[in-house]
Amino acid sequence: METFELPHQRKLEVCYSPALFPVYYQSKDCIVVIIDIFRATSAICTAFEHGVNSIIPVASMEEAKEYKQKGYIVAAERNGEIVDGFDMGNSPFSYMDPGIKGKDIVLTTTNGTKAIERAKAADKVIIGSFLNISAVINYLNKQNKNVILLCAGWKDRFNMEDTLFAGAVIKKLSQNPIFSGLADSSLAAMELYKQAESDLNSFLANTSHRRRLEKLDLDKDIEYCLRMDLSDKVPTFKGNALSL
Amino acid sequence: METFELPHQRKLEVCYSPALFPVYYQSKDCIVVIIDIFRATSAICTAFEHGVNSIIPVASMEEAKEYKQKGYIVAAERNGEIVDGFDMGNSPFSYMDPGIKGKDIVLTTTNGTKAIERAKAADKVIIGSFLNISAVINYLNKQNKNVILLCAGWKDRFNMEDTLFAGAVIKKLSQNPIFSGLADSSLAAMELYKQAESDLNSFLANTSHRRRLEKLDLDKDIEYCLRMDLSDKVPTFKGNALSL
Repeated sequence: METFELPHQRKLEVCYSPALFPVYYQSKDCIVVIIDIFRATSAICTAFEHGVNSIIPVASMEEAKEYKQKGYIVAAERNGEIVDGFDMGNSPFSYMDPGIKGKDIVLTTTNGTKAIERAKAADKVIIGSFLNISAVINYLNKQNKNVILLCAGWKDRFNMEDTLFAGAVIKKLSQNPIFSGLADSSLAAMELYKQAESDLNSFLANTSHRRRLEKLDLDKDIEYCLRMDLSDKVPTFKGNALSL
Repeated sequence: METFELPHQRKLEVCYSPALFPVYYQSKDCIVVIIDIFRATSAICTAFEHGVNSIIPVASMEEAKEYKQKGYIVAAERNGEIVDGFDMGNSPFSYMDPGIKGKDIVLTTTNGTKAIERAKAADKVIIGSFLNISAVINYLNKQNKNVILLCAGWKDRFNMEDTLFAGAVIKKLSQNPIFSGLADSSLAAMELYKQAESDLNSFLANTSHRRRLEKLDLDKDIEYCLRMDLSDKVPTFKGNALSL
């Protein structure tokens, strides 16, 4: 049986680790969705919903310190905790402060900002989380481009929560004929999401980052990061910063 | 709730791409299971079941040609097909020939032999396929070591059939308390296998390598590579070759 491929068929692939990005990134002409559910991309969506002007992602602590010396508000997280001496970490709740309205915030995190660093040469780099999932899906449906869903993972390892978000996006997007010829990584993420969707929190109960955050008493963050459609904004990387 | 970790807990992780192997490989003191279901590791298990003496895996065509000039039987596959001028490819059926009994065969394939090349510094490197799955599980249960299930994938991309084999191994091994604290990659593979196990062939119907092999008229190979426990042998990498 021949596979019926539409002439305008687009690739829709999940990249399970920033370390694999060069394998999936074949041309600049694509959209990369950065996914770091616990908690960088959830925090970024929250910040834009609360009126931040821009977020400047930096991969290293050195860059973060340089910005701090220049007087920026700097958020720095490593291994789930706020780095000593910095204003905030990546808890979404920190970004609900009315004081951030109109501000430019510098952000460095264990995984999420490294994923942005890897992907930033692509034509379009956007931020995805459950908080803005329908906005992301609408955006991708309109653009008619190849899509790479880039899971930030945990220190370049596969992780479950980013995979489930990718699966949720694919479940919807694959109804669009241009995305119907799914890569194996996309099929896998979608099948996992189908198993998990009736109760994401329970499905994640035994996963490693969930356990890590539980130890840090961050149950409230987890619950918040799994809520859907609290924002209709799609933060986009332009120049050296994320903005709307 | 604290996770109860036994003092002799071992890691059981799935590495979804040879390109990610350095992320998962933290110490030589581990067992790496090489997985390339369609078809390298299935062919290797078949060869040992039919009396081959050793298989010398080589990653490049250049090495394969050098061995051929020295008079070895050389099997070479690229993109699913036998490379012109070579004796055989990686169809398991080629390895049922009584003529291979007691012979040393050189093998190069698109993905499987590259995965072996990546992993060969580890203390133990073994070959896994559905054909010898129970033998592999028994071996891992006895060794009491950290385990990396290394999926050969397709040109460093995630693939489904290797993932399902990893999931089948994990489903059994996780009953052993030393392997009970599963990594996210292992949980994902196991959940996918649980969905697929009642009919592996149907679950794989829409996957990319399945479609690739179907185009090459290799349905018989696919069906054979999904059969279980036709061999109780565990080919192991020693020196520069696989043997029993």
